[in-house]
Amino acid sequence: MEQYDLAVIGSGPAGEKAAVKAAYFGLKVAIIEKAPKVGGAGILTGTLPSKTLKETALYFSGKADRGLYGVDRQFTRETSVEDFMFRKNFVTTNESDQMHDNLVRHKVDVYFGKGSFVDQHTIRVTGETETTISARYILISTGSYPFHPDNIPFDGVRVHDSDTILTIERFPKTLAVIGAGVIGCEYATIFATMGTKVYLVNYSDAILPFLDSDVTQSLVEKMSKDGVAILFKTSFESVEVPADESQPIRIPLKSGEVLEVDMFLYAAGRCGSTKGLNCEGIGVNLGPREVVQVDQEYRTSVPHIFAVGDVIGFPALASTSMEQGREAVGTMFNVGDMKQVSKVYPFAIYTIPEVSMVGLTEDEAKKQGLSYCTGVARYQDMPRGKIMGVQDGILKLVFNREDLVICGVHMMGNLASELIHYGLTLVQDKKTLRDVISTIFNFPTLHELYKYACYDGLGNLAGHKLKK
Amino acid sequence: MEQYDLAVIGSGPAGEKAAVKAAYFGLKVAIIEKAPKVGGAGILTGTLPSKTLKETALYFSGKADRGLYGVDRQFTRETSVEDFMFRKNFVTTNESDQMHDNLVRHKVDVYFGKGSFVDQHTIRVTGETETTISARYILISTGSYPFHPDNIPFDGVRVHDSDTILTIERFPKTLAVIGAGVIGCEYATIFATMGTKVYLVNYSDAILPFLDSDVTQSLVEKMSKDGVAILFKTSFESVEVPADESQPIRIPLKSGEVLEVDMFLYAAGRCGSTKGLNCEGIGVNLGPREVVQVDQEYRTSVPHIFAVGDVIGFPALASTSMEQGREAVGTMFNVGDMKQVSKVYPFAIYTIPEVSMVGLTEDEAKKQGLSYCTGVARYQDMPRGKIMGVQDGILKLVFNREDLVICGVHMMGNLASELIHYGLTLVQDKKTLRDVISTIFNFPTLHELYKYACYDGLGNLAGHKLKK
Repeated sequence: MEQYDLAVIGSGPAGEKAAVKAAYFGLKVAIIEKAPKVGGAGILTGTLPSKTLKETALYFSGKADRGLYGVDRQFTRETSVEDFMFRKNFVTTNESDQMHDNLVRHKVDVYFGKGSFVDQHTIRVTGETETTISARYILISTGSYPFHPDNIPFDGVRVHDSDTILTIERFPKTLAVIGAGVIGCEYATIFATMGTKVYLVNYSDAILPFLDSDVTQSLVEKMSKDGVAILFKTSFESVEVPADESQPIRIPLKSGEVLEVDMFLYAAGRCGSTKGLNCEGIGVNLGPREVVQVDQEYRTSVPHIFAVGDVIGFPALASTSMEQGREAVGTMFNVGDMKQVSKVYPFAIYTIPEVSMVGLTEDEAKKQGLSYCTGVARYQDMPRGKIMGVQDGILKLVFNREDLVICGVHMMGNLASELIHYGLTLVQDKKTLRDVISTIFNFPTLHELYKYACYDGLGNLAGHKLKK
Repeated sequence: MEQYDLAVIGSGPAGEKAAVKAAYFGLKVAIIEKAPKVGGAGILTGTLPSKTLKETALYFSGKADRGLYGVDRQFTRETSVEDFMFRKNFVTTNESDQMHDNLVRHKVDVYFGKGSFVDQHTIRVTGETETTISARYILISTGSYPFHPDNIPFDGVRVHDSDTILTIERFPKTLAVIGAGVIGCEYATIFATMGTKVYLVNYSDAILPFLDSDVTQSLVEKMSKDGVAILFKTSFESVEVPADESQPIRIPLKSGEVLEVDMFLYAAGRCGSTKGLNCEGIGVNLGPREVVQVDQEYRTSVPHIFAVGDVIGFPALASTSMEQGREAVGTMFNVGDMKQVSKVYPFAIYTIPEVSMVGLTEDEAKKQGLSYCTGVARYQDMPRGKIMGVQDGILKLVFNREDLVICGVHMMGNLASELIHYGLTLVQDKKTLRDVISTIFNFPTLHELYKYACYDGLGNLAGHKLKK
């Protein structure tokens, strides 16, 4: 039986980074993947595909530049679903191949098959053949899978979860999306951009409740303008799929309304992929929704078994998962001298337009009893925004009234997922409005938003609102 | 005669920001503009127009996304020069109008006409009428104008400087550009992207010598690939323009070669716009190339007269000029509590692709005798780069071997002018490779380049080059 220093179960972003880091420091590493390719949801079915489809939708719709140049570019034929999936397939395949190469180059042994604990150090891998390996340390990074309520007849043709939606063979004319979380909102805007009429059904009265409410409000307005009808405070009673595909799917809602749509996407929650691992059998404790329970060091109830990524639940972002993987390996083997991963990190939601944030929302500042104030700048007022022809886009800063320290940065607009990183440094390093104001930004750039939001904040504090 | 606290001569980015800041603090301010519209070169003939044309060229050429999606967008008719100028005209007019509104809203008196010193406190404005005003403080922010060597027969039709190139009425088939500085390189790539064969003639053996040489090397390779023939270490002997416009312009070079081209752009240097101001008459000293000489506070040889922006020479960037304007007003009236503007600031060159930098180049680090090392990451290896389909693009960090402090950040690629601002905070705050490595970036974003460049740097230090 092959002996390893580390066995990693699941080759998504968290598992790959962990395996490669351990191997880089000379440890003997195995990685186990149940799918035919490495990458996990981060590369193959979740993060990267939806982000690529977002760009694709912008391209095919011409939405980003319509009217900007007086003359529009057009396609010589109608966009097919194959066209729509073309770039996604290219990017995910290429990235998966590159991950595989990176693992091989670092001499990580890749096992394709389903992993399952035999005991606390032994894993059986069941693929085309069956292999058993043992390891000093084990990392569970198996990710998550879409939750399937019993009363939804998922068929992968017209009734989808966030995995099967990637396999559609035609564009829906109308689409009902259940769940206004990250996945629901992203796909709602992608399909709306492609011209599909979208109904977004949400049980509460807010989408993405962890965001600053001004940003959510802007996003809701933008989505409504772009063809997403959001139905708040309701849910579905049932999903009635007629045998005849030309007939609409009927979705009676708790509000009494009945939606009739062409396709259905359920995007309300994911569960930890722990089924069949035999966690229970070896003493690894699970929590609600099948997630693995870990301590602050990502250690499970079995001290030499760690878990990272989506399988441990919130925040379940590829970005945080990769760092958790690296950090867990650092803890296991005391290698690398990376400080503990920063607890200040950005969130990005790849809706159209993008949303991103770091630090405190205005509501959180209020709840904490902080004496705070805010400052806002808009894309359309920046020369760079004018070049891009951006109509919607906002940067909002939350800062302390007394010392002007910036404690929250919130954006909606083009490239928000990129632009937030400057804000990340502001929050991390407790920078003030004056620090930003005395900074020189390239002209013209969208980063100038930061300076103008600071001026706006100073104006708000002083009680007058002219721009400097 | 109207009396002011501050009179500003020239309404480009530097003058506007200064005037508005002073007015914001309750001072009585006049601004004088010799053109029919406010904005100066920053808005009307220089920065903003060329940056807009860059985006326009990318749009019309389809270069940014050709082949990316399997199916290309096309135009239903050939691109005319009117199409090409459409967005530029929209953006510059809109921005000029917004500047004008901002001045009026702040109750700045705008005088259209040519300003000239009568004495150290009095300015005559000669426009449709003649007015004389006086001011306690005066700010010279008149900008610069393109240098015209005697032996070039500028005609604004086929033989251009960087102002008249904006008025072309047809696309050149071939273009010779003299001077591989910022303006020359920007227009060379813009026209090459639009399909013009471009010859870039440069007296030395390097373009943009203040940049890191690895970045320049990448840019030269990219430009060559994109249809810019760069002729190093030579200059023109003469420019022979035949009367018949169908005949080529002949440009014998010092190297013995003869260029035959359709159009000619001279972009080798600008001079301070001080002609007719009567600086000499009131004791304001000028330097070489007609620039106004100032001290570190932007004060001229007359203590209550300041000068900022392109008229004082290097670095002559809209971004730095605006801050100089604000800082000068702070010094004059002791208003605002902005710290002195940071001496660490970014440069951006809006070539296709963009180039940007902050801090020390590798050559400077070498010259200073620093014990440094470098780390590199490439766009094409980042998932976000794959989504964008970027083939070229590089981030290079220069850092200290001992303490790993990052002292220089250099980029070439899409959005480099934006992405550099994160690097700006690294250099400003003396962050280390480990600080960056323990940071979480949104995934997928181009900002991940920073993390991978740090890993590369650590690998270079350790003598092995695998990625973590």
